[in-house]
Amino acid sequence: MSLEGLSINFATIKQGGSFATMVDACLAHGITTISPWRDQVHGIGLAEAVRIVDQNGIRLSGLCRGGFFPAADEQGRRNAIEDNKRAVEEASALKADCLVLVVGGLPAGSRDIRGARQMVEDGMAELLPYAKQAGIPLAIEPLHPFYAADRACFNTLKQSLDLCDKLGAGTGVAIDVYHVWWDPELEEQVARAGQNGQILAHHICDWLVPTKDPLNDRGMMGDGIVDLKGFRRMIEKAGFSGPQEVEIFSYDWNARPVDEVLSTVVERYKTVC
Amino acid sequence: MSLEGLSINFATIKQGGSFATMVDACLAHGITTISPWRDQVHGIGLAEAVRIVDQNGIRLSGLCRGGFFPAADEQGRRNAIEDNKRAVEEASALKADCLVLVVGGLPAGSRDIRGARQMVEDGMAELLPYAKQAGIPLAIEPLHPFYAADRACFNTLKQSLDLCDKLGAGTGVAIDVYHVWWDPELEEQVARAGQNGQILAHHICDWLVPTKDPLNDRGMMGDGIVDLKGFRRMIEKAGFSGPQEVEIFSYDWNARPVDEVLSTVVERYKTVC
Repeated sequence: MSLEGLSINFATIKQGGSFATMVDACLAHGITTISPWRDQVHGIGLAEAVRIVDQNGIRLSGLCRGGFFPAADEQGRRNAIEDNKRAVEEASALKADCLVLVVGGLPAGSRDIRGARQMVEDGMAELLPYAKQAGIPLAIEPLHPFYAADRACFNTLKQSLDLCDKLGAGTGVAIDVYHVWWDPELEEQVARAGQNGQILAHHICDWLVPTKDPLNDRGMMGDGIVDLKGFRRMIEKAGFSGPQEVEIFSYDWNARPVDEVLSTVVERYKTVC
Repeated sequence: MSLEGLSINFATIKQGGSFATMVDACLAHGITTISPWRDQVHGIGLAEAVRIVDQNGIRLSGLCRGGFFPAADEQGRRNAIEDNKRAVEEASALKADCLVLVVGGLPAGSRDIRGARQMVEDGMAELLPYAKQAGIPLAIEPLHPFYAADRACFNTLKQSLDLCDKLGAGTGVAIDVYHVWWDPELEEQVARAGQNGQILAHHICDWLVPTKDPLNDRGMMGDGIVDLKGFRRMIEKAGFSGPQEVEIFSYDWNARPVDEVLSTVVERYKTVC
């Protein structure tokens, strides 16, 4: 079974040293698609990261991450947009499929989620022409409602796609099973996204029962309650055939040797995804 | 300011001994509306609980809880329905405003959330005639999507109201700010519920940032990021004028003396709700 359809998000193996050593670990397991985080790229320097990517024929299923548009004041919002422009440039240099956006939650001290959502819309509207010129699609990742206050105030596919429709070409969604598996409107919204070419990425892991930590207790595929094969069928039926990107934030898995993590990912990818 | 609009869910003061002593504590603070849990009623016996309620002019804004309809086999589902009938009887004896339903999640070993949702519908459909005859409205409490797998596979107001519309008279929703504050469709769905007389209860607490524990880190009103006054205005605009029921699952507050908890609840109720 080819591993062409498998991507490793570097949050999954963040214990693996530098960007360079994480790429080496993936290559050793036959994996050539990755999704790194910006701090990992910065750690080795953008130019060196680009060299490694080009030289090894690596594909980026995404760059993590832009976003965090809401801020308590105008200067904070301007800073966010400037930082997002740097993220677009990095994604472009690395020829990433998309820039993944964790859009941000409530500004400090705010109880106005509607206002925060408007700030996201305004920020994306300003970023979009820049991203289009650079050829980098902006992927809103609707996060699980658990993170609505502090990480992303866009929490369902419908809500995210409504914004994409408003903003137009160059925007879409990253569909992560962890965040959306529970959504009663999942199937219709995935189909809608597919029809409009708005599926930019597909992230996988599993939802553990019980989930002991709100942030760092995602499961390895097969260890939880998500119907991953069914989910992937739904995504493919909607027209997306891009990689399944494994993104597992987990105290458990991040404490294990990278080789063990990647061996397990590959085995599960072949059996339960 | 009258405390007539304030109800205490006994999860908030579960450290307070028996049903009888919890009622006494509420009365000492001028609170005459409560929402007990069935195990607390069983602890003192239904007849004695009814006597205490009647003798003190206590109102129950709800009885917690029925639900948990999905099960791995037919016998499990039958047992759930029988247990729900007992819950209806208890709610009726206590003249509760409604029976709150935490509908249940996935049966053990299941990855089929759609199937679980069907079991909820089937279970409620069977329970409903019994509840109507007893004069007890069934209140689906859509739980935060964090609990979709293990506690309640109904996770939004829209989804819950769609089922209520299907089942008809005698059903409605318990709207808990903790579970629904993030919902992008909150306002329209609250209005819809109000128009159809489907708001059966209104629970309050607050959402803390960060939320450290998935189950037991709800906040006291005013300590988090929910716009509680705005939320209540929305509920009242929709036509519901019943009590605000304080339900705080919290390691923190459950470790404090009941008098301190109730004093704080009353003070916050007067200032931030």
